[in-house]
Amino acid sequence: MKLYSGPASGNSYKARLLLALTGIEYELASLNLQKGEQKSPKFLKINPRGQVPALIDGDVTVWDSQGIITYIALKYAPDWLPLDPKHMGKIMQWMAFAENECLYGMARSRAVVRINRPWNLEETQAHGEAGLKIINAHLQGRQWLVGQMPTLADIACFPYVALAPEGNLLLDGYAGIQAWISRIKALPGFVGMPGIDP
Amino acid sequence: MKLYSGPASGNSYKARLLLALTGIEYELASLNLQKGEQKSPKFLKINPRGQVPALIDGDVTVWDSQGIITYIALKYAPDWLPLDPKHMGKIMQWMAFAENECLYGMARSRAVVRINRPWNLEETQAHGEAGLKIINAHLQGRQWLVGQMPTLADIACFPYVALAPEGNLLLDGYAGIQAWISRIKALPGFVGMPGIDP
Repeated sequence: MKLYSGPASGNSYKARLLLALTGIEYELASLNLQKGEQKSPKFLKINPRGQVPALIDGDVTVWDSQGIITYIALKYAPDWLPLDPKHMGKIMQWMAFAENECLYGMARSRAVVRINRPWNLEETQAHGEAGLKIINAHLQGRQWLVGQMPTLADIACFPYVALAPEGNLLLDGYAGIQAWISRIKALPGFVGMPGIDP
Repeated sequence: MKLYSGPASGNSYKARLLLALTGIEYELASLNLQKGEQKSPKFLKINPRGQVPALIDGDVTVWDSQGIITYIALKYAPDWLPLDPKHMGKIMQWMAFAENECLYGMARSRAVVRINRPWNLEETQAHGEAGLKIINAHLQGRQWLVGQMPTLADIACFPYVALAPEGNLLLDGYAGIQAWISRIKALPGFVGMPGIDP
């Protein structure tokens, strides 16, 4: 199994974190995103979006972090994706939250601040802040986003919530989020990324 | 099963379309989004995002179109969500595409043009157009986005692709998309919405 990843990409980190927590062996292909390796003709045949992450496992190619972590969990780590309708519906709800509030709010704010991407910071921060309020309220009295064990919902939401301060969205007031971050960091096999210390 | 929906919401339509195609009976609660009924304190207890759609089925509440159609398919219409890793990974890849290119590209362009939302139309259209190219290329030689049958991937991507012209993203040059739209409209039980004629 080969994972195409970028060192500072929170989306790539979702896959690397799941693979680390489950102890699954894989080959890492780390692309230089500043040099635009993700836009090369060769890589566009793997992922027409020109983005990391992408995964190749035998004859299967999957792109997008959500597709990749779903594939990995179903094939190699089913405990991370309980398939009963109630749990799965809610996991997919939070996976969508990861693709909306986390990505277009928190991650875009980080990209504006860190690498000067051309989005409206006030708008992305408002979107991200709304997301932080929702996830923090949900975590009151809960250990994990869905059910009694960590799932793909936690994996999908964790990176850009933990990186939110890099987009000047501070977590100081969010006790539920801070405790949840600590719980995830305490999982056996946890790995960090730039901006998220183990 | 009660679905909270908005008449002009493509995200709500994903759930209504799946329910129509599968013949599942449900109660429809149509909110007046112009009047802000989705922001009422009562509704915020159902969905803290203050958005449609949301679903209540017995003791289960799910929000976000992706969470809702996953829940409905798993519980009542499993043919729409094959759970083997290869198919499921790719379905989740396209569900993520629906939450990115379709929502932040095509749907946001439509919202700027139709109801004057404050996003940068040039940027949202470029995002949407990139998505149309990817999905059109993928549909060359394929009937459906994943595998040999329609799945949640098609349900998730269809609404905002079909509504793209309302955001001034024309489909004239995209033969693969046009044929796919015709195939979806020909499915038994198909229902439309404003902007998508049966």
